[in-house]
Amino acid sequence: MKPNIKEIIAKLTLEEKAGLCSGLDFWHTKGVERLGIPSVMMTDGPHGLRKQSASADHLGLNDSVPATCFPSAAGLAASWNRDLIRSVGEALGKECQTEGVAMLLGPGANIKRSPLCGRNFEYFSEDPYLSSEMAAHHIQGVQSQGVGTSLKHFAVNNQEHRRMSTDAVVDERTMHEIYLRSFEGAVVQSQPWSVMCSYNRVNGEYASENHDLLTKILRGKWGFEGFVVSDWGAVNERVRGLAAGLELEMPSSGGAGDAKIVTAVKDGSLSEAVLDQAVERILSFIFKAAENRKEQAAFDAEAHHRLARTAAQESMVLLKNEGGILPLRKAGTIAVIGEFAEKPRYQGGGSSHVNPTRLDLALDELTKATGGGAKVVYAQGFELDRDECDAELLRDAALKAADADAAVLFIGLPDRYESEGYDRTHLRLPANQLAVLEAVAEAQPHLVVVLSNGSPVEMPWIGKAKAVLEGYLGGQAAGGAVADILFGDANPSGKLAETFPVRLEDNPSYLFFPGEGDRVEYREGIFVGYRYYDTKRVEPLFPFGHGLSYTTFEYGDLKLDKSRMRDDEKVAVSLQVTNTGNRAGKEIVQLYVRDARSSVIRPDKELKGFCKVELQPGETKTIVFELDKNAFAYYNATLKDWHAESGEYRILIGKSSRDIVLEGSVEVVSTAALPVVYTANSLIGDLMEQAATRDIGKELMAATGLLAASGDEPDDMMLAMMKYMPLRGAVAFSQGKFTDAMLSGVLERLNGGKAKVEN
Amino acid sequence: MKPNIKEIIAKLTLEEKAGLCSGLDFWHTKGVERLGIPSVMMTDGPHGLRKQSASADHLGLNDSVPATCFPSAAGLAASWNRDLIRSVGEALGKECQTEGVAMLLGPGANIKRSPLCGRNFEYFSEDPYLSSEMAAHHIQGVQSQGVGTSLKHFAVNNQEHRRMSTDAVVDERTMHEIYLRSFEGAVVQSQPWSVMCSYNRVNGEYASENHDLLTKILRGKWGFEGFVVSDWGAVNERVRGLAAGLELEMPSSGGAGDAKIVTAVKDGSLSEAVLDQAVERILSFIFKAAENRKEQAAFDAEAHHRLARTAAQESMVLLKNEGGILPLRKAGTIAVIGEFAEKPRYQGGGSSHVNPTRLDLALDELTKATGGGAKVVYAQGFELDRDECDAELLRDAALKAADADAAVLFIGLPDRYESEGYDRTHLRLPANQLAVLEAVAEAQPHLVVVLSNGSPVEMPWIGKAKAVLEGYLGGQAAGGAVADILFGDANPSGKLAETFPVRLEDNPSYLFFPGEGDRVEYREGIFVGYRYYDTKRVEPLFPFGHGLSYTTFEYGDLKLDKSRMRDDEKVAVSLQVTNTGNRAGKEIVQLYVRDARSSVIRPDKELKGFCKVELQPGETKTIVFELDKNAFAYYNATLKDWHAESGEYRILIGKSSRDIVLEGSVEVVSTAALPVVYTANSLIGDLMEQAATRDIGKELMAATGLLAASGDEPDDMMLAMMKYMPLRGAVAFSQGKFTDAMLSGVLERLNGGKAKVEN
Repeated sequence: MKPNIKEIIAKLTLEEKAGLCSGLDFWHTKGVERLGIPSVMMTDGPHGLRKQSASADHLGLNDSVPATCFPSAAGLAASWNRDLIRSVGEALGKECQTEGVAMLLGPGANIKRSPLCGRNFEYFSEDPYLSSEMAAHHIQGVQSQGVGTSLKHFAVNNQEHRRMSTDAVVDERTMHEIYLRSFEGAVVQSQPWSVMCSYNRVNGEYASENHDLLTKILRGKWGFEGFVVSDWGAVNERVRGLAAGLELEMPSSGGAGDAKIVTAVKDGSLSEAVLDQAVERILSFIFKAAENRKEQAAFDAEAHHRLARTAAQESMVLLKNEGGILPLRKAGTIAVIGEFAEKPRYQGGGSSHVNPTRLDLALDELTKATGGGAKVVYAQGFELDRDECDAELLRDAALKAADADAAVLFIGLPDRYESEGYDRTHLRLPANQLAVLEAVAEAQPHLVVVLSNGSPVEMPWIGKAKAVLEGYLGGQAAGGAVADILFGDANPSGKLAETFPVRLEDNPSYLFFPGEGDRVEYREGIFVGYRYYDTKRVEPLFPFGHGLSYTTFEYGDLKLDKSRMRDDEKVAVSLQVTNTGNRAGKEIVQLYVRDARSSVIRPDKELKGFCKVELQPGETKTIVFELDKNAFAYYNATLKDWHAESGEYRILIGKSSRDIVLEGSVEVVSTAALPVVYTANSLIGDLMEQAATRDIGKELMAATGLLAASGDEPDDMMLAMMKYMPLRGAVAFSQGKFTDAMLSGVLERLNGGKAKVEN
Repeated sequence: MKPNIKEIIAKLTLEEKAGLCSGLDFWHTKGVERLGIPSVMMTDGPHGLRKQSASADHLGLNDSVPATCFPSAAGLAASWNRDLIRSVGEALGKECQTEGVAMLLGPGANIKRSPLCGRNFEYFSEDPYLSSEMAAHHIQGVQSQGVGTSLKHFAVNNQEHRRMSTDAVVDERTMHEIYLRSFEGAVVQSQPWSVMCSYNRVNGEYASENHDLLTKILRGKWGFEGFVVSDWGAVNERVRGLAAGLELEMPSSGGAGDAKIVTAVKDGSLSEAVLDQAVERILSFIFKAAENRKEQAAFDAEAHHRLARTAAQESMVLLKNEGGILPLRKAGTIAVIGEFAEKPRYQGGGSSHVNPTRLDLALDELTKATGGGAKVVYAQGFELDRDECDAELLRDAALKAADADAAVLFIGLPDRYESEGYDRTHLRLPANQLAVLEAVAEAQPHLVVVLSNGSPVEMPWIGKAKAVLEGYLGGQAAGGAVADILFGDANPSGKLAETFPVRLEDNPSYLFFPGEGDRVEYREGIFVGYRYYDTKRVEPLFPFGHGLSYTTFEYGDLKLDKSRMRDDEKVAVSLQVTNTGNRAGKEIVQLYVRDARSSVIRPDKELKGFCKVELQPGETKTIVFELDKNAFAYYNATLKDWHAESGEYRILIGKSSRDIVLEGSVEVVSTAALPVVYTANSLIGDLMEQAATRDIGKELMAATGLLAASGDEPDDMMLAMMKYMPLRGAVAFSQGKFTDAMLSGVLERLNGGKAKVEN
């Protein structure tokens, strides 16, 4: 029988209700025994469970119970595989049930504004559509097991630098189009049980007490039905937070926050109804968790490890493969170089750090995969825990590379370079690793580089490697996945979910990241990631959506089921993709939209659809995308809504944002009525552009007397002068012939007659 | 005897006073005969007088009385020659006196935010220091003749697109550091008799009724003593404008504006004292003009033409001179190609258009200059008034180029490409000119390109020309100056006052220029021109400050007279420059300052001094710059003042912003006291950085209990967590052990004890 929450609330004392709005300790909600309210547990870990032992009542960066460590979000997003990430979510949900965890604190849907953000490895993408799709399917997977998720960190939390005090200053359109959009899609599609507010301020207000974010937008606009939990320690003023829509404070504040709530209710500064609603939302979660609890749950660690390996295969991105050096033959001698091969970096530091059920090492897996067909020799090359070169290790690496038929070099970012808690300050790899790369490249032309990192690095050395495999932080099975790909036992199918810039300076946020003091201005606005690189034509090292395969794909036969649509209709876009090579493979087909002519500033193109498709050699499949207003609209801050302007939109089908292979076009007709009010400062030229107002425009132009004075053929300058002349100019330049009263009359005709302009 | 203005005002009727606050017609102030107040004339023309005939009572883009047409501001600024521009100003002043003109409407000190701005040819630079220096010396020159100037267009008017309605949205620091700074230097140094407010809005308020700009800053901060005149037609609400500090409305509004003033005074919404003050300022100007009137003035047209030629020589910038192809020998056959050679574009379109006293054509001047030593042949190549190729002209050009020993190709922007009134939309030259360039380059390897344009163009063809001379809009004597430079009768000495980008997209304002509707956001902030290119390391086509000479210069012996200074002291920087070639020449030595470590976002370097020096072959001169706080300070919006942070500043001596040849360093000690108030949201890490507060920081860190829990050696993540932890974190994480009351006590100690932080 379902508990009657409203009845329970009625029985709770004020102090009990306030108490329910904060944690019992670091990981549990409070229970109230006499009313049958249990205490339930939350744990970190979007890509693996991080359940602390009961005694670990602290931030807990120490060991936790063993759990499968999947690739972190940066990698999972590079799979562009909705089904895969849902499967990972299911596995995580099962592990939660096994461990008695009611809610997993994730996924993170923050946008990668700068590659420097220390927590980018936990986030999906620079693109809000891809990010929200990944988050939505992650949530679906976890929650299918009766375990909650907490979509985090809401919102505009895109750096670690001064993360608990910084104020992210972002314009309304950018906030909606980029930073909130990534959450919106996930909330609307998948209803996470919880949303976690972030540490930072947004436009002056702490996210933890931002009524616009937590209530108006999240619940009002998006229809969120769950509860909001604070990031651990994100509460500033507890009562303000509660009033703004933050239900649960975590961790326990030792009673301090609860006491403030009690006082506020008693002195009338907080309505008890607000508290009751918060408690209702928290209890709904607690009872839902209890109801869904599977006491006997267990998970198949081997199966989850295999899933982790599949996920890792699809998460890795083959960036370069000159002369088809990959896959490697299982023959001859292969020099495996770099300490990562035996001490892998397979996850990030901070709250997402998992204690894995097992750990595959690339060196072992490569050796095993050759089946004895090739000789694998190993050189450490460098020490992971320092940046200085070790001449001995370096020489050994070069010698072994020289003696081999090919070299596989494992380099990347050591733990200390990249973690929750602080940002990177540059995109370089450690100097000792680069020195080894130079030496090995010198010794061995057949050089394959495998990267371990959670976020882009600069590759001034790219010309020295024949192939580069971006391994991201691939989870506990990454070592096996690398072996699968390098030897062709798996065909790489990941594509970048973020732009790799040539240099840090190319990033759009470069000049203003991470801000001044406690203020960071998002001056690049909507131009985040490829929206910037493609619009400003800055050549990236590797573009958004880029990734190679061992087979080849051809695209053709683009069709739209209509050439013209109202913004409340849909258009179906279909195309055919053929595997023209001789290996089975998966291709990620990307659909971008470009507004051919816009009255507002828009990016060159925006991702509005994608599809990962598996094809046997010679096989062809038809892919269909259905596009609605969302595909064409921008956020209009005046309407406080999305708006698709009437006009032509280009439909671009690409293998990456820079490799568009098919193009089509659709005309959209807006059904929105944009109000237009003419004033004395409206422009004559704007009147001339609309049939309905053209005659009035001519009238006012004549009134200025300027055209008559400039002769029969007004020059370009005079025409421009007229175009940009406010209506009041008719008064100013008429030498008294056209009066203010006459202008008022004209404005009345314009506004009273409701002359409509096209929008 | 000086008229007693206060007495006169007392005798004026309210209607007369209001009437004095607007023009009599397009070009004259009103007079009041019974009180001996004359009507005086203003005319357009920062680089040449544009006095309309008496009957031309309109915007008047038709012919005006003949006057010397000097190079427009873009060119004059490239001379970096303060004395030269002062001489040009003197000549302009003399021509004004000759024509009975009381005030010249210029110079323009707007910053070149985008190379697209149609009016850039009338502005000096992308750099506020260079711009203000040029404007200041122009003003000094004109006003030395008893003629007024009107420094325009105040302020933040950096585009023509929707110039009468657009709202320039710019942050306070950027406004002061970049857009106002350019005016500030000129006002403070040279006290222009007038400042002309611009058409646009600034942060929501029309410039014509912006009290902050017209009164608080202009008069209050800068000590401006003259009067403010509206740009022609810039008045929006007349009474608001007057109250804000706009004294004179131009042109006549046919009595409409005057009537509003009368009504406002009568109904008490405008204090008559404000009107009286405005009238006093206008009368001060009128009587000063009358007093300085030289009835018998005449000017030496020949001498002014010679000055125009000198100015043109120094305004041109030799961008490229591969293999020293220039100067050309006066021998063999020289093909002169391009219609510009006989129909020069030597000035811009719009209100600055001058009717020149004479006009030198490059074709004639080149022919003359050879003295018969070389044969000059001419091919038109293309038609200036269209973009389409003419096959016949093209072939003729190629043939003549092929038959010659060298080709000089004149290309550039036709009038219709660039004018007041509208902006460019791209940086390309017309297609027909480019086709001729291709054909001629194919036919003749010794190709010299001479450009006529007011603002940068893209040069994808740069590799095809051996030499490129940027001629700007060189005034009526440009033809002779080109001949002087090409044959080496003059040694080029101009340097770019603006960056030439490789592509339009490289410009910092690209994504947001010219805005959406009537709003343009200056999102690049202080990163205008080289401040952007150098900080973001975007390679320009030609950097700010670049320009070649026929001789060579060596720099050495950099000395600073102190290594440490208070911000109220000065440092003298000296260096030696030697002409190491075998021709006399002029060098522009540039001094930039870099803040070695700043707490705020600053550009890589900023121009803080320059000096043009003439040197005979082998000659060495010592150059001394004196730097004060201005050279180190940024505008601090909290202090509402300039602030030089304590710390090291690099002194960079360069031949251009990208060619720094000497470096020094000075430590500045700030005397400013920046107030610091600690709150619960101050960071523990910030306490740890100051000796005075470190112990309190440690105390709070311990209170969180997190460090103890994380063991003996906290990892990087935990250290970062502590660094960015707000003081309130001590309460939140202490599990009740550290209370709000204890935090209040700590804050009292911090603030009450006035623990000072270094600034």
